[in-house]
Amino acid sequence: MNVTINRDLLLENLTNVSRALSTKTPMPVLTGIKFEITKNKMYLTASNNEISIQAQLNEGNKLKLEGEGSFVVPGKILSDIIRKLDANEVQFKVVEDNVIKIYANRSDFTLNALEKDNFPLISFAESNTFIKLDIGTLKQIIRKTTFATSLSESRAILTGVCLNLSNNKLEAISTDSFRLAKIYLNVNEELPELSVVIPSKSLDELNKIIIDDNENDIELHFSPTKILFKYKNLLFQSRLIDGVYPNTSSLIPTEFLTSIKFNKTELIKTIDLMSLFTNIESSNIIQLQLNPDKTVEIKSTTSEIGEGKEELIPLECSNPVSFKIAFSAKYFLEAVRSFDSSEIVVHFTGEIKPFIVTGEYDVNLTQLILPVRVS
Amino acid sequence: MNVTINRDLLLENLTNVSRALSTKTPMPVLTGIKFEITKNKMYLTASNNEISIQAQLNEGNKLKLEGEGSFVVPGKILSDIIRKLDANEVQFKVVEDNVIKIYANRSDFTLNALEKDNFPLISFAESNTFIKLDIGTLKQIIRKTTFATSLSESRAILTGVCLNLSNNKLEAISTDSFRLAKIYLNVNEELPELSVVIPSKSLDELNKIIIDDNENDIELHFSPTKILFKYKNLLFQSRLIDGVYPNTSSLIPTEFLTSIKFNKTELIKTIDLMSLFTNIESSNIIQLQLNPDKTVEIKSTTSEIGEGKEELIPLECSNPVSFKIAFSAKYFLEAVRSFDSSEIVVHFTGEIKPFIVTGEYDVNLTQLILPVRVS
Repeated sequence: MNVTINRDLLLENLTNVSRALSTKTPMPVLTGIKFEITKNKMYLTASNNEISIQAQLNEGNKLKLEGEGSFVVPGKILSDIIRKLDANEVQFKVVEDNVIKIYANRSDFTLNALEKDNFPLISFAESNTFIKLDIGTLKQIIRKTTFATSLSESRAILTGVCLNLSNNKLEAISTDSFRLAKIYLNVNEELPELSVVIPSKSLDELNKIIIDDNENDIELHFSPTKILFKYKNLLFQSRLIDGVYPNTSSLIPTEFLTSIKFNKTELIKTIDLMSLFTNIESSNIIQLQLNPDKTVEIKSTTSEIGEGKEELIPLECSNPVSFKIAFSAKYFLEAVRSFDSSEIVVHFTGEIKPFIVTGEYDVNLTQLILPVRVS
Repeated sequence: MNVTINRDLLLENLTNVSRALSTKTPMPVLTGIKFEITKNKMYLTASNNEISIQAQLNEGNKLKLEGEGSFVVPGKILSDIIRKLDANEVQFKVVEDNVIKIYANRSDFTLNALEKDNFPLISFAESNTFIKLDIGTLKQIIRKTTFATSLSESRAILTGVCLNLSNNKLEAISTDSFRLAKIYLNVNEELPELSVVIPSKSLDELNKIIIDDNENDIELHFSPTKILFKYKNLLFQSRLIDGVYPNTSSLIPTEFLTSIKFNKTELIKTIDLMSLFTNIESSNIIQLQLNPDKTVEIKSTTSEIGEGKEELIPLECSNPVSFKIAFSAKYFLEAVRSFDSSEIVVHFTGEIKPFIVTGEYDVNLTQLILPVRVS
C-alpha cells in the first residue's frame, strides 16, 4: 500500500479530521486517524465519544494511490509532522503491518501504527430526513446559542442546543436555566417535523471547521440517535442528547414595563468596566437603575474592592420610570455580544422578572436573562 | 489631596510600575501601588521581594496636584479600571484615610485603600559606581543570556546572570550547568572592576519595560546588595544574588575537530521537526551525524512514537570526518535562536565533549552546550 499526497491537501484534511481525535480515552486507537484506501478513494476518519469526522479524497493530481487496505496513525504526531514539514509532497508506505514509513523531501519518518482492528466501525449513513442550510446561517445559529447552554452534566439535556423543525420554521434554543437564547429562521421549503438536542461542544467544533465562503451549503441528516453534517468533502457526525427538552415557549415575556435602547459598543464597555467590581463567588452581579430623567446607572460593589458606577444616556426609553434590577454581568455581556446590530434593546417586565434583549437587525434572535434579588 | 492626571500617561506608568506588584505575598500592602504627592511631583511605587519600581511624574499640563501626602491603591484593579476607561482625564481624591474616590467622565469609583503605613520604605539611591548603556545593547544581553540560567533554586547563584566589568570590557554569563551563554562588549570608557549576579527574572521584567527607540540610554548603578536601573522617568531596582559565581573561563574550547556552518532558519526548522520525536523524560535528545560526504543527518527516536530523520546540506564544513553527537534539542534550539546572524557555525571538539555555537554577525556571543552520552 502506497499513498502519495500533496502536503497542503493532507494538512487541511488532517486538521479538520483531528477535531474528533480523543485525547484521554480508554481506547488508545481513538487517538489515531484511520487511513482507508479503496480503488480510487482515500478516507481519513477520527472519532471520540461525541463526534466522528471523515474526509473523503479522490485520486487525482494531488493524490496517488497504490494498493488497497487501511492503517491507523497516531493523529497528533502526524498532524504536527505534516504542519512542520517543508515539502510539496508526502509519501506513505506500510512496511510491516504495524509500521508506517513517511517520506518527504530530505526527511523520513517511521511511525508505530495503532492496531487497526480495534478501530470502531462507524457508519456515516445519510438519512432521508435532511435539510440544507447555508453556512453563514448555521454559523450564526451556533454562535448565538451555544454559549447559553449548561456546563453541568447534572441536567445533561441542557448541555445541548435544541433544534426544532416544523412547517417552514427552524428554531434553535439553549438554556442553562438562568438564561435562554432563542433564534428562529423562516425557510421556503416544507421542513420535516422534528426536535433534536445537539451537544453544544459538537456544534462549537463544527463551527471551527465550516467556513462561510458563499460557495458551499451544508446538509443536516437526522437519525434517531445522531446527526450527520455533510460539508464539502467532509462528513461530521455527532451523537444526540437523549431526553425531553424543557418547554420554554411560555418563558419569553411579550409585554413590557419599559424598553431601553442602547448603543451596543458603549453598553458593552460600561458592563465590562463594572465587571471589575464583581466576582464569581457573588455570580458577577451588577445593578442597573433607570431614572425618570431617562439616564441609566450601572453599578457594582464588592466589599473587598469597593464600588464602581457609570452613567449611560440611552438612545431611547419607552417609559422612563424609576426602576432597579440586578443580574449577572457575565450573562448579560454574552447575550449582548451575540447581536450583530449596533443598537440593542433591553425589555424589562419587572424588577425581579426575566428580561429580554433584542436587536434591530437581529429580528429572529431573543436573549433572555433571569435577574437576581438583591437586598 | 487631589490628583488630576491624563489617562494615557497614568496607564503607561501604572503598566510599568505594576511589573513589580506582588501577587502572592504575606504582606497585602505589596499588592498595592503607592502614590506619593510632594510639592510638584508624584511618585508611583510598587515592590516585591525581587524588584522595586518607581515612576516619577512632574506637575505640568498632564498632571495637576493639590496638597501633599500619600495613599496605596490595590494595583491590579486600578490598572484594570484605567485600561478599560474611556476618558481623557482621571481624578483621584482621598476622602477618608482609607477610601480613594476616582472620577473619570461619567464614571466614578470608590476603592478601599491599603494601609499606607505598612508600605516598606524603599531607597532608590543612586551609586557612584555606575555605567551607561544604550537600550539596544542591554536588551541584546538580556535576550541572549537569561534563557540559559537555571530554574532550580538548589544552586541559587545559577538562577542569575553574572555581569563582569573590568577595564574596557563588559561580560555577561549564564549557565544552568548543562549549557552556557556568554556575551561580551568592548567599551570606550574605563569601567569599574566588579562582578554581580542579577536574578534572571528581574532582567526579563526589565526587558519588557525598556524600549529601544534610539533616544534613551539606561544607567546601571551598582551597590553591594542591589542594582538600580535608571531609564526615562523610571527607577527599576533589583536585589543581587549573593554568592560566588563559578569560574567558567576555562570551559569554552578554542580548538576544534570540525566546524559546520548552517543556514540558521533551515537548521531551526529541522531541529524543530525532529523535536517531535523526543520527550521531556529523555531530556529531548536528538542525534547529529556528520558524514565524510559533508552531509549532516539529524535524527531522533522514541520507542512509543517512532523515528524521524532529516538530511541537511551544510553551507560549509571545515573537516568532513565521520562524527556523531547527541544533545538536548531544546537547549540547542534556544542557543541557535539567540543569534541574529542568518548563518551560524557549530564547532565540535569530540563526541562527548562540550560544543559551541557562534554566528558571523554575533562576534561577541558564544553559546556552549554539553552533549549527552547515548548507547
